[in-house]
Amino acid sequence: MNRVDVAIVGAGPAGISAAINCKIRNKSMILFGNGMLSDKVAKAELINNYPGLQGMSGAEFNAGLKEHLDSLEINITEEKVTQIYPMQDYFAIMTPDNQYEAKTVIMAVGVDAKRTIPGEKEFLGRGVSYCATCDGNLYRGRTIAVICEGESMEEEAEYLATLAAKTYFLPMYTKNNLPVNVEKISGQVQKIVGNDVVSGILTTEGEYRVDGVFFLKNTVSADILLPGLEAKDGHIVVDRDMATNIAGCFAAGDCTGTPYQIAKAVGEGNIALHSALKLLRN
Amino acid sequence: MNRVDVAIVGAGPAGISAAINCKIRNKSMILFGNGMLSDKVAKAELINNYPGLQGMSGAEFNAGLKEHLDSLEINITEEKVTQIYPMQDYFAIMTPDNQYEAKTVIMAVGVDAKRTIPGEKEFLGRGVSYCATCDGNLYRGRTIAVICEGESMEEEAEYLATLAAKTYFLPMYTKNNLPVNVEKISGQVQKIVGNDVVSGILTTEGEYRVDGVFFLKNTVSADILLPGLEAKDGHIVVDRDMATNIAGCFAAGDCTGTPYQIAKAVGEGNIALHSALKLLRN
Repeated sequence: MNRVDVAIVGAGPAGISAAINCKIRNKSMILFGNGMLSDKVAKAELINNYPGLQGMSGAEFNAGLKEHLDSLEINITEEKVTQIYPMQDYFAIMTPDNQYEAKTVIMAVGVDAKRTIPGEKEFLGRGVSYCATCDGNLYRGRTIAVICEGESMEEEAEYLATLAAKTYFLPMYTKNNLPVNVEKISGQVQKIVGNDVVSGILTTEGEYRVDGVFFLKNTVSADILLPGLEAKDGHIVVDRDMATNIAGCFAAGDCTGTPYQIAKAVGEGNIALHSALKLLRN
Repeated sequence: MNRVDVAIVGAGPAGISAAINCKIRNKSMILFGNGMLSDKVAKAELINNYPGLQGMSGAEFNAGLKEHLDSLEINITEEKVTQIYPMQDYFAIMTPDNQYEAKTVIMAVGVDAKRTIPGEKEFLGRGVSYCATCDGNLYRGRTIAVICEGESMEEEAEYLATLAAKTYFLPMYTKNNLPVNVEKISGQVQKIVGNDVVSGILTTEGEYRVDGVFFLKNTVSADILLPGLEAKDGHIVVDRDMATNIAGCFAAGDCTGTPYQIAKAVGEGNIALHSALKLLRN
């Protein structure tokens, strides 16, 4: 397998800033993310505090970033990273269908505005999963709950429903047309319950017995993605070089903390890449 | 005197990023700097790693920043800051002709690529000065050396020559037309000599007896500007919030260390301003 110099996880302003610098410095890389770039940026009505560009909408800013990537022939790999393993001197990066290797990793995964649900982290790998392709088969013929962040995830929900005997579907958005073979629960999930393994979910509309819970979301909390990564109050802990506690792993953008600002994100992406370069040189 | 919320020292990308955010957040401020913005940026032939803008020259980038400032009605105060004093709960900021007060200070002074000359810091205030207007009178009728960084400083050199009995002039650039009443020394200054006070300079062309040495430069080292400011290897020491060791004083941009990049500078300017806002709220 081709081992790249830098893997960048996330194609928002921080990840793009790192990618642009990586390309200019002629290092090999893989940039994981959404081809439509940052959802959060896209929703911004007006961006007026990014020096040099004034009075843009978020959509216009994203379009400018896309043009910048295209001009440098930087591709986005549209696969969801499900797990990263720090190996002896490289990182193994898993997506539902592939495995990649990189000498360094830059986490630019954004911040999950939605709080973690009680039990979510505790039951990870014991009934809780973030990856339909990886873990779906474990729930063949059983009862599952699928907590779905957006319509782009519905295909995964339908896939899970073909395997499970019963699928409760909890959309976190307004939803009229259901995926096939699921039963919608309108209530909000409040807690995941169980002893050793998941046995049910508690929602605002009552309790449901399930064997597994799938969270289908665009952003998985970074410390779940990369076991052992130090996080505090929901943010990855970094130093002034954007280095994390794991050698070779850097972080940039909203995932490292406030202020949640585009200028901060591009600045940190720039620093993180330069720190990765320094490491690669040694 | 009107005490502003934030004084920003330096109108390069870091200072401008702080100023834009300060204005948007409706805080009072004063932005010190060169109306032509950053010299260093202006000299860049091509900037290709500032996300969202591609293939600009430095001059074009500066023009975009100027437009951005103008659109928000942010003025640049074109006075050279010669000294900053941390008072009980504010900062006193001295320029040759005025004194200002600010609740917080953001140092965005850039980095002095030229090394400090042996003796320069040691004899500061004992024969070494950075300010013609402040200290010129002390050398009336005496012999001085003027080490001049650029043509824009020559007016100050000429002023000093009207006071001193003899003025040695050491331009750090190619110079044919001399200021009046000075004697040019073509050699490079290597060392400032003296015991308690300055007694001479050592140059590549020999030693000269002088009573005072004036360094006329655009950027004065930050820890000389603000006594007590912690610096290391020529950079201001900051934490992740861009706070320095002096309460209420933040720093951003090249003066805090490498990488010397526009994206890093605007990111840090943004963070520094948000940290100042947090402090002002308390």
